[in-house]
Amino acid sequence: MKVYFQDLTVHSSKRFELIDITWKVEEAVAASGIRNGLCLVYAPHATAAIIANEHESGLLYDLLAKVRELFPEGAGYRHDRIDDNAHAHLASAFLASSRIFPVRDGRLVRGTWQNILLVEADGPRTRRVVVEVLGES
Amino acid sequence: MKVYFQDLTVHSSKRFELIDITWKVEEAVAASGIRNGLCLVYAPHATAAIIANEHESGLLYDLLAKVRELFPEGAGYRHDRIDDNAHAHLASAFLASSRIFPVRDGRLVRGTWQNILLVEADGPRTRRVVVEVLGES
Amino acid sequence: MKVYFQDLTVHSSKRFELIDITWKVEEAVAASGIRNGLCLVYAPHATAAIIANEHESGLLYDLLAKVRELFPEGAGYRHDRIDDNAHAHLASAFLASSRIFPVRDGRLVRGTWQNILLVEADGPRTRRVVVEVLGES
Repeated sequence: MKVYFQDLTVHSSKRFELIDITWKVEEAVAASGIRNGLCLVYAPHATAAIIANEHESGLLYDLLAKVRELFPEGAGYRHDRIDDNAHAHLASAFLASSRIFPVRDGRLVRGTWQNILLVEADGPRTRRVVVEVLGES
Repeated sequence: MKVYFQDLTVHSSKRFELIDITWKVEEAVAASGIRNGLCLVYAPHATAAIIANEHESGLLYDLLAKVRELFPEGAGYRHDRIDDNAHAHLASAFLASSRIFPVRDGRLVRGTWQNILLVEADGPRTRRVVVEVLGES
Repeated sequence: MKVYFQDLTVHSSKRFELIDITWKVEEAVAASGIRNGLCLVYAPHATAAIIANEHESGLLYDLLAKVRELFPEGAGYRHDRIDDNAHAHLASAFLASSRIFPVRDGRLVRGTWQNILLVEADGPRTRRVVVEVLGES
């Protein structure tokens, strides 16, 4: 059994943004040398999230629009009395800041239309993403 | 350490549908021979999701109604200019296309009212679900 | 490879409540003796959920307010004909009843503002939370 970690650094440039980290995650899986196991993509942040979905420009727009609709900025939140990002905390808590994938025959298992996206809801910031691969080599 | 995979094939017959795959997942756990570990139920699809909840006909109705309310069809999405299923992508991204369960003493751990349900939001389709069991036998 | 289980008992005292279980989970990780692996925090309940976010009193209020806004009580649900907690089932299904974390160098990996919270949506009740740590010692 083997456990491999790789920390990614992701820079966001806007308040709301979707950043595709699929290739970095797949590189980490390849570097791990693990053939069968699990890959956890974990953002240690309370104002960002990780999702898996299609990287199509119209859909990226729709996804952010839905995040902003369900968790609107400045909607009278109590947390905003001490900070201005309650909406981002809500988005992170509801969407979750991680996704987990099978690793099979040395490759991350995902659908054709499933890219791995960091959801930035309180940028611009530098974000860390922990990629952990656990399994057998 | 052992890693076991089983691919399930699930046929949906409607545009929106909840399909109970609990027994198939539990059969895979039994077939794995793994006594203690984790079971990942992963749909490699960007327009479907996996949830765990009660299989009661009224609640199944309520769950789909809530999916359709939060992610309504044809609400002016940009992705719908090239396809007609943005709502299903949103549902998949927000609900997540996987759930993970403990495996203990050879059995999948779940509550009495937690069945494992595939959420179809763009059917009818044939869906694949990857069941991965990882642990010690 | 090692698999360690610890069952937590959590008592809620209100219908809606967020209960911080971070320290109990971290104690379980320490007790496991596992240095590198994964920690699954799993509530075997269909009317509760697990999230990770900041433990700040204003934000705890905002989080519960958002749960109640997205999944309002008694909104004509079919499940409420046989029970009165459809809203809690919806919250549990959408938020998910588990979160999974990396374990690295003997510690659970989480952000500074990520505490582990049980979301009670149908209390008061006694809830069980299964903490599973899997990895190498």
